[in-house]
Amino acid sequence: MPAAASRKLKIGLLGCGTVGRGLVELISKNQKLIRQRSGVELEITKVLVRDPGKARPGVDSALLTTQPEKVIQSGCDMVVELVGGIEPARGFIQRSLSDGKHVVTANKALLAQDGFSLLQAAESRQVRLGFEASVCGGIPIIRALRNGLVGNSIQSLSGILNGTCNYILTRMTEQRVEFEVALREAQAKGFAEADPTLDVDGHDAAQKLKILAELAFNAHIASDAVQVEGIREITADDVIAAWELGYVIKHVATAELAGDAISLRVQAVLLPTAHQLARIRDENNAVLVRGDAVGEMLFSGKGAGSLPSASAVLSDVVDIAAHQGGFSTSLDTTLAATTGNGFSRYYLRFPVADPSAIGPITTALERNGIAVSNAAAVWAKSESMQHQVRVLTHPCPRPEVEAARRDIGKLGLERGKSISLRVGG
Amino acid sequence: MPAAASRKLKIGLLGCGTVGRGLVELISKNQKLIRQRSGVELEITKVLVRDPGKARPGVDSALLTTQPEKVIQSGCDMVVELVGGIEPARGFIQRSLSDGKHVVTANKALLAQDGFSLLQAAESRQVRLGFEASVCGGIPIIRALRNGLVGNSIQSLSGILNGTCNYILTRMTEQRVEFEVALREAQAKGFAEADPTLDVDGHDAAQKLKILAELAFNAHIASDAVQVEGIREITADDVIAAWELGYVIKHVATAELAGDAISLRVQAVLLPTAHQLARIRDENNAVLVRGDAVGEMLFSGKGAGSLPSASAVLSDVVDIAAHQGGFSTSLDTTLAATTGNGFSRYYLRFPVADPSAIGPITTALERNGIAVSNAAAVWAKSESMQHQVRVLTHPCPRPEVEAARRDIGKLGLERGKSISLRVGG
Repeated sequence: MPAAASRKLKIGLLGCGTVGRGLVELISKNQKLIRQRSGVELEITKVLVRDPGKARPGVDSALLTTQPEKVIQSGCDMVVELVGGIEPARGFIQRSLSDGKHVVTANKALLAQDGFSLLQAAESRQVRLGFEASVCGGIPIIRALRNGLVGNSIQSLSGILNGTCNYILTRMTEQRVEFEVALREAQAKGFAEADPTLDVDGHDAAQKLKILAELAFNAHIASDAVQVEGIREITADDVIAAWELGYVIKHVATAELAGDAISLRVQAVLLPTAHQLARIRDENNAVLVRGDAVGEMLFSGKGAGSLPSASAVLSDVVDIAAHQGGFSTSLDTTLAATTGNGFSRYYLRFPVADPSAIGPITTALERNGIAVSNAAAVWAKSESMQHQVRVLTHPCPRPEVEAARRDIGKLGLERGKSISLRVGG
Repeated sequence: MPAAASRKLKIGLLGCGTVGRGLVELISKNQKLIRQRSGVELEITKVLVRDPGKARPGVDSALLTTQPEKVIQSGCDMVVELVGGIEPARGFIQRSLSDGKHVVTANKALLAQDGFSLLQAAESRQVRLGFEASVCGGIPIIRALRNGLVGNSIQSLSGILNGTCNYILTRMTEQRVEFEVALREAQAKGFAEADPTLDVDGHDAAQKLKILAELAFNAHIASDAVQVEGIREITADDVIAAWELGYVIKHVATAELAGDAISLRVQAVLLPTAHQLARIRDENNAVLVRGDAVGEMLFSGKGAGSLPSASAVLSDVVDIAAHQGGFSTSLDTTLAATTGNGFSRYYLRFPVADPSAIGPITTALERNGIAVSNAAAVWAKSESMQHQVRVLTHPCPRPEVEAARRDIGKLGLERGKSISLRVGG
């Protein structure tokens, strides 16, 4: 198929920190893929930075400026705001919208405070405001609430929205260490700030919850409406006591309909170990949504980081660009399909007349180059069952497994069809 | 905020089976919400049915017709195809696209066979083709691959795409019954067809995998490229043997890059019990995607059913409608925010001078109307630890918990701050 004619979209970039550099990297790395999927060719016109002298590998230094106006008025179609914080970011966005530019932002704090009025400003100028990157990094949860679940009345939404808290609680649960030890580990690994207040006291999760709840329930929510508690008071002992009772302690943000009101809270809770959110480990995020049509749905993945957040920014950029002028899809025909050689561990089961067949069967496997990890000679427990030989192999290619099964078939030991199942994960 | 001016979108509906009736129900139930979220007012112009005499509660019988042309030429902006199968559905879609109508379809079999040429036909007519409902019901996985992850190079995609197989394997694992017993249970509950071939032999999952892989890898995939195996050969014994080795048997569809080719297979595999897909139970579906920017991401939920599929159809309908004429969002201001009364079980921990405080503490709780489910007097194991009383309550309102904690504070038994954590899930 001929590549679809592509349109150029010019982007003015405000801010070039970790997410900004991730965005530049992704655009350059996956440019061809983005063009194929959307028919859009992305070009960065100008980049606002504080210090143009700083080294930024991959970023064209000729694009750098310290003057925001030069970015907004760089002839771009869209402004991507990655400055963060309330001001001057709010002013930048308002000016961009007034100038008729689409805006994409990752600014959680600003969205939580002023999302409603910024959306109104965008609407009145007939441009769009994208903010997928403001909550849960690369997980497309904003898109799910605005589009994917648009026909649903949402009954509740709960999630693990702060990766720092989840990392700390995971360490406390799995290594039985105290909060302070787990916090220091999180800081050493870059999952917690030097001043962890916003994260561990629950304010970060509360901002994200407010943004999600406004979309889910189509309601304007006051900033102080969320009941916020952090995790500083939890001890290793609490975690163990909870575990012994069948629970895991997690920091969960919840918004749910309660009659004509919405109940909003961010707090450490005890979840049954089988609960879907109880299983979210380390710095991962997850959102569980209950809609009247879809029932319960879980989205989980990395909630922060340079590339996941840049991926979310890009999804907004391309979505806005693609919908300006029709949608286009072109396929890459250079990729062939293959079933692979199936290199993996395998589980094999042979129905046999006599379980002592374990000897010749494992011998035949090894002769065919298949290393046996574990083999069992299983006597039938009842008349309806057959004797069996079961084998777990070390990793090997599937063709060799099939060759060995044919070879074993010739030994005349089997009393039915053997099976082979790949071991995945 | 004044409600945004809404635009009308006229829908011609081809087919009125379970998904069609679900769509009519959702549109009527959530009309106001859809208008608020998208500024779109939906109207059904005509409905193609085989037998107009059949009772269809909620569907206006004046709209029914047995002639497809009357639907396509009913002055609609968009045609929703829910007839299913290859023909006459393909002809209906081609005629609709030629007429310049947007098309939304749930037709998995047709998309797996002809998705590529139908997308080309839509593109050449400058209209859009939505098919979110063709894979995984209400889970917005098509949208995630086309939009949410657009900036990612996808490395692999694997999923539980067939609810029937997953239901059967879950029953076999949890109740240790044989395949035939679990299949009959699935049939009795409506999770399996009278003829379960398409599901249990893996063909349904293979069609879905082909659709997802074409989007994920931007590649045209031959219909016979998927290696397909079903689950008929799995016995209860295999499930137990796998469990004893630390694995769960699941029916998994996988597409992954292998050099310059894509490896595609649908088969029963042994997954480690901690694997994200190992935990997907019953008739649920899940898709695990690995992208170069976002890392690993999981989407899970109900993969089939009248309302989940109708929800997916609606998401396409509204997305196409909203992007025809700008996006609009209006908020519902009648919903107040509340933190609720926090009715729940609670975990309480009191640091005490003497663990015998368990008596007065539980007495005080009961006096405050809080029923104790479980209490422990815990002696400090080391000098750095404090003696504690820990309590798990029966469900009660949070204000009563806080009142009781204040009451207990007055007893002078505590040697530090007590904590209370809600028990969720």
